[in-house]
Amino acid sequence: MNYIAEIRQQNPLIHNITNMVVANYSANGLLALGASPIMSSAPEEMEHLAQLCQALVINIGTLNVAQVEAMLIAGKAANKNGIPVVLDPVGVGATPFRRQTVQRLLDNIQFSAIRGNAGEIATLANVDWQAKGVDAGEGKADWHTVAKTVANANGCVVSISGEVDYVSDGKQVVTIHNGTPIFPKITGSGCLLSAVCGAFLAVEKTSQNLTALVRACTAYAVAGERVMQGISSTQTGQFAIQLLDQLAILDDETVEQYGRVNYV
Amino acid sequence: MNYIAEIRQQNPLIHNITNMVVANYSANGLLALGASPIMSSAPEEMEHLAQLCQALVINIGTLNVAQVEAMLIAGKAANKNGIPVVLDPVGVGATPFRRQTVQRLLDNIQFSAIRGNAGEIATLANVDWQAKGVDAGEGKADWHTVAKTVANANGCVVSISGEVDYVSDGKQVVTIHNGTPIFPKITGSGCLLSAVCGAFLAVEKTSQNLTALVRACTAYAVAGERVMQGISSTQTGQFAIQLLDQLAILDDETVEQYGRVNYV
Amino acid sequence: MNYIAEIRQQNPLIHNITNMVVANYSANGLLALGASPIMSSAPEEMEHLAQLCQALVINIGTLNVAQVEAMLIAGKAANKNGIPVVLDPVGVGATPFRRQTVQRLLDNIQFSAIRGNAGEIATLANVDWQAKGVDAGEGKADWHTVAKTVANANGCVVSISGEVDYVSDGKQVVTIHNGTPIFPKITGSGCLLSAVCGAFLAVEKTSQNLTALVRACTAYAVAGERVMQGISSTQTGQFAIQLLDQLAILDDETVEQYGRVNYV
Repeated sequence: MNYIAEIRQQNPLIHNITNMVVANYSANGLLALGASPIMSSAPEEMEHLAQLCQALVINIGTLNVAQVEAMLIAGKAANKNGIPVVLDPVGVGATPFRRQTVQRLLDNIQFSAIRGNAGEIATLANVDWQAKGVDAGEGKADWHTVAKTVANANGCVVSISGEVDYVSDGKQVVTIHNGTPIFPKITGSGCLLSAVCGAFLAVEKTSQNLTALVRACTAYAVAGERVMQGISSTQTGQFAIQLLDQLAILDDETVEQYGRVNYV
Repeated sequence: MNYIAEIRQQNPLIHNITNMVVANYSANGLLALGASPIMSSAPEEMEHLAQLCQALVINIGTLNVAQVEAMLIAGKAANKNGIPVVLDPVGVGATPFRRQTVQRLLDNIQFSAIRGNAGEIATLANVDWQAKGVDAGEGKADWHTVAKTVANANGCVVSISGEVDYVSDGKQVVTIHNGTPIFPKITGSGCLLSAVCGAFLAVEKTSQNLTALVRACTAYAVAGERVMQGISSTQTGQFAIQLLDQLAILDDETVEQYGRVNYV
Repeated sequence: MNYIAEIRQQNPLIHNITNMVVANYSANGLLALGASPIMSSAPEEMEHLAQLCQALVINIGTLNVAQVEAMLIAGKAANKNGIPVVLDPVGVGATPFRRQTVQRLLDNIQFSAIRGNAGEIATLANVDWQAKGVDAGEGKADWHTVAKTVANANGCVVSISGEVDYVSDGKQVVTIHNGTPIFPKITGSGCLLSAVCGAFLAVEKTSQNLTALVRACTAYAVAGERVMQGISSTQTGQFAIQLLDQLAILDDETVEQYGRVNYV
């Protein structure tokens, strides 16, 4: 399927319950890609938005108790309405509050996909790893196993973002080799990718969630690579802006041509 | 009146009760134009800010119950202090919570102006229209009548933003033909225009609110047109940045020269 | 000490309790410099973050009652854990709510540094000054005395940002003469500087807080000067982006070479 073409044609409405750091960037990124963002954490409208939207993206970056309640209502309503739900467990290893919240979300909502950095997904897999706040951190892990484990435990697709991306549905593990080291220097670059995953899932009508996630992560990585062709590795401000421009012109053929994807 | 020159000279303080998606962009846009922004939703300081500021802009983009209470306090205080109040009914048609909130605001606050996209103003006019979340949506409507109806129902100026802008005080309808299709691709571009309307109203001392709104919307549209002369229609990231640069150099003469305004 | 090199090597985690207007820009600025940001205002995780982070930055820009409670918990925990705490009293003179909140913070937390614009620090010194919302405002004041007074009253370093920066520990007053007039036109440029001060303090292990603040403010001002060499004084959008790029390449030698610092 030509996901990007479908997104531009269907213009799916993506409901984001997200953090105040990245709300603007995520909205602009979705618009650039061709989707429509709506950002809301008001419990009063969570059920109505689930009837209106084609995907829900839950991001715990600046969570608070009231917002978590909204996440639970929205997630259950999305499940009831059969729309895909993406979880971005931002900084889940940083504090017990984040770990407990993510557990509660996983216990109550059936996610279609979980996308995070190495530190976040390692936390979900109970792997020993030195995560650092909301950053990926460092350590050694067998990412094939980690991705599979978390996917199987939660019955959904899992994507680990980094120099190499790992995407698994619990059976297969796909690796994407288009990493751009500048991504972690842009706040919200991971959060925007989670929103982009939501848009790809929104137009995936045959439950090929693994394929949708692989395409989403490949498209995003290819967009980053193409931006880096024109700027230096320290231009983080420029990168953030030009990534939006790049998402607006990216097409499925380009992703197909430049993506370096290994199906293991 | 030379509104932009007056704004640069008076540097009016604009109180924005706004959403987390656009707060940064609205603040930077007001600063570029020559006004001073203050963003606050704390009920404790709403009355004090009404004594300090020259205009209030209420935006329901990421509303919650606590913020709505602040809006009501601030709006009433602004009315008592005689400063103009602008309403941006972001995505009002999307959910009952938004519709009820806007009704409550309209019942309790006398607005000087309401600015929204086609979908939002159509909702206020009870016109059949397919709005899409916070986006304009599509359909057919007689915008002259819609603008007049909403203006008369609320005793204020109404501005509908789009390819053609419609501005009405309930008697006259003015159209502005400087539309730039990239605007809806930038999150908060409408929200910033509402804030700009607040700045124009802040320096309008003779209650010529229709004129102030027409000039504000024309200035903003002309700024957009001028940015588009230097970039391509897909450069949404660049557009957002250069629109700020353009607002910082725009002057009344340029708006006068390039504005295509029809008084019907 | 080579502060910037140390920040890039240690990559300190900086906890920001900040406002929704500047959260994104502060996070991107800290990342560009080489530090790691985490933004959180959830009372449930304030104590855990104090054990994880190397500095805390408290910013009252869009304060609310719940966030103030989080600030108090976080500040006390930071004091207990011996990590530096920076206060940015955004718009403190604007309303009684802000003044009372800052007083409460100062009564309960031992700050390492307070950084603000002229209007904000004048308010803390009870000096007659026409501040304007969250902007610096105008008037006449003896900034040497103001800086010393506020530093002595609170037992910490104080930095007043403006055309000339004043930094004092209550005994000495240091002035920095690298001011760039465009800074106040960028929302959150002061807030980012406060976060940068947090990063410099995080790597200062011998309690030379005056030196750390002087270096932080000089580095930031030099970065601004260097950006201005390539753009015009009205390009506020470009300035904001290029300041990030500049922070990413700035080094201690450049700051040493171009800083114009007077130790009085």
